[in-house]
Amino acid sequence: MRFSSFGEKFSTPSGILTLMEDISAALAGDPNILMLGGGNPASIEPVNAQFRAALARLADDPALFSATLGAYDGPTGHARLKARLAAFLSEQCSWPVSEANIAITNGSQNAFFTIFNLLAGRHSDGTFRRIVLPLAPEYIGYEAQSIDRPFFVSRRPVIDRLGERLFKYRIDFDGFELPDNAAAICVSRPTNPSGNVLTDPEVQRLDEIAARAGIPLIIDNAYGAPFPNIIHADVTPAWNENTIMCLSLSKIGLPACRTGIVVAQPEIIDAIGSINAITNLAPGSMGAALALDLLENDQLTQLCHSEIRPFYADMAAKALGWFNDAMGSTPGLAHKPEGAFFLWLWFPDLPVNSQQLYERLKKRGVIIVPGHHFFPGLAADDWRHRHECIRVSYAQPETHVQRGMEIIAQEVTRAYNGH
Amino acid sequence: MRFSSFGEKFSTPSGILTLMEDISAALAGDPNILMLGGGNPASIEPVNAQFRAALARLADDPALFSATLGAYDGPTGHARLKARLAAFLSEQCSWPVSEANIAITNGSQNAFFTIFNLLAGRHSDGTFRRIVLPLAPEYIGYEAQSIDRPFFVSRRPVIDRLGERLFKYRIDFDGFELPDNAAAICVSRPTNPSGNVLTDPEVQRLDEIAARAGIPLIIDNAYGAPFPNIIHADVTPAWNENTIMCLSLSKIGLPACRTGIVVAQPEIIDAIGSINAITNLAPGSMGAALALDLLENDQLTQLCHSEIRPFYADMAAKALGWFNDAMGSTPGLAHKPEGAFFLWLWFPDLPVNSQQLYERLKKRGVIIVPGHHFFPGLAADDWRHRHECIRVSYAQPETHVQRGMEIIAQEVTRAYNGH
Repeated sequence: MRFSSFGEKFSTPSGILTLMEDISAALAGDPNILMLGGGNPASIEPVNAQFRAALARLADDPALFSATLGAYDGPTGHARLKARLAAFLSEQCSWPVSEANIAITNGSQNAFFTIFNLLAGRHSDGTFRRIVLPLAPEYIGYEAQSIDRPFFVSRRPVIDRLGERLFKYRIDFDGFELPDNAAAICVSRPTNPSGNVLTDPEVQRLDEIAARAGIPLIIDNAYGAPFPNIIHADVTPAWNENTIMCLSLSKIGLPACRTGIVVAQPEIIDAIGSINAITNLAPGSMGAALALDLLENDQLTQLCHSEIRPFYADMAAKALGWFNDAMGSTPGLAHKPEGAFFLWLWFPDLPVNSQQLYERLKKRGVIIVPGHHFFPGLAADDWRHRHECIRVSYAQPETHVQRGMEIIAQEVTRAYNGH
Repeated sequence: MRFSSFGEKFSTPSGILTLMEDISAALAGDPNILMLGGGNPASIEPVNAQFRAALARLADDPALFSATLGAYDGPTGHARLKARLAAFLSEQCSWPVSEANIAITNGSQNAFFTIFNLLAGRHSDGTFRRIVLPLAPEYIGYEAQSIDRPFFVSRRPVIDRLGERLFKYRIDFDGFELPDNAAAICVSRPTNPSGNVLTDPEVQRLDEIAARAGIPLIIDNAYGAPFPNIIHADVTPAWNENTIMCLSLSKIGLPACRTGIVVAQPEIIDAIGSINAITNLAPGSMGAALALDLLENDQLTQLCHSEIRPFYADMAAKALGWFNDAMGSTPGLAHKPEGAFFLWLWFPDLPVNSQQLYERLKKRGVIIVPGHHFFPGLAADDWRHRHECIRVSYAQPETHVQRGMEIIAQEVTRAYNGH
């Protein structure tokens, strides 16, 4: 079969493909596998109960059912959700938005595919424009998304040691300059994979740099506020006309609804609608309908506040404790878990690289994500750090996470001992 | 805002964008508008009742709910649906398929975006390869999908007059030759917009031509068998390793689930999975879960057989009757409605073109789709036919369709009279 250039590029194995196939294989296979890779959220029963109640209301209401699943939404998605969400974001976050600022997409991943390729890559004026990631590690799912040749450019962070086993990344603003051909700046906040949360001053500075250059600041808010609000640092999510803010229903517990939400200026929203129409006709309505139901019943922020955030805060503390206990005298640090639901572990000078460690752990029945996939756009260089880290999900049953940490510690210790 | 070349192309107004925006505006606006544009299926209550029952079963089963909506599917979609569907297609259609031949997508539109761009466009060997549509009119949603420059090439049909007011398209095999740079042949069957159903000999001949050229035959089966089975001609859906067969849950009544199903050789399926991972992580699971429930309860074909097909057969006959009654002595023909749920009306030598007729009808509160959008890849020429047709949905309340036909007849008569 002869594939196009696009086909060749997009059918080449990618980090995100491996990750998604690992999830699928683990779910289908041996129940003893400790699945600490992937981005599946935890199953939190009080939250699920509310989702099921919303679903039951939909099943019980013939008119609502038909209006929801029996008819296509418009290209920017569910009209009633957009209106309700605009009111909610205005009230709760003081963002000056109307429904003209909101588009629904088939998940956040699809939103990023659309937005990145809308702005970056080849331009009709002959330029090739880039997405600037001010700090790597960054999200694994970005890397393969360039339709044309890769358009990401990223920078090493400053690493602050916070204690014997803890560190935190900071954007290295020293010497930070946008390339002439920047299309946008993008950050995930909380950061997937590291659990870092950029400080408000860091984001303000990025916002100023973007505004000065006349390019948007894209914020991947899949784990952030106002929902799912898996964020333990004291920060305020800000939005202005130059921000492209991407939210998601995945991490509140509905990943298989594939519902992303983009909040941006109308010119961007209209373009997303146009691309949605061509590539998808319209986004799916199921997640939108559930979100609308929860908003109308004042449950969305309530669930985040009373269930989701406390659950992950507790798991973060426990996971960090299990990691510390398991590592003993072996070197190894964790990024301070400020948000999302991953521990990002760093093993300085580990004799095996992260891919090898991933394979060794897989043989032991522990699935993690090797860290080297999380440096999109970082020029190949001799920075060992990118091969010394792994991402470990703690959105899994406690016994799995604890046992997984023990096995990780065993394998890392073995590697440090030259085996 | 500076958009990329891709961004400029995909944010340019397209036929499919107008169509989807018309749907959205009609739903949000004046309830007196007669919405005969768009591709929304009819709301058939006995069918909806089964969907709601399946949804209620999902809402009532905490373990099933969590497994379905609380976790990402793999990149080729819902594993249990793929297995069940492979068995179903083997038994019901005698297609020699396993689950390795099946991928789920976020709707059929997204499947076509993926498949077309996987095969056609620029290739690394320097060629630019094309999708051959052996007969235009063809589906409006294809036209804007080329990531690079347009890659469709199509041919005029033979028009058989079947009576005073009825005609049927045939593929013009006389002089039909594939271009050297053909990537695939594609047909929709039943054809959207015309309601044509290519005969089995026509499809066999296309299959032979494709096989001889070593390229796949893509069949857009969104309205066909085994589901939704909105097909009134006596034909058999065939599949072999060289076929890329695309099915959908939209026209059984679940368009907002956005669930497409591709049946193809594993190399194609794997590529779709890879593209899904990069652009979407995974397809949504809601439609897949409902389809699986219906399959397990032996309801899917039962609903198609006892409710969906008879409903549309009846509406096709009625719509044709209302059209004939309304037109009086004014010229005007309909394509024989053999499948799908549109009347494709042809007004030979109409003094206004289809865009103008669309605008006049919109002012009268009747939304249709102007026909000139349905000729992707047909070289600009002096063929008036492409500007003399409109597509009218009869998947709407009877009074709307009947009243709509009357207004269409009035406006067409007015135009023929030089106004």
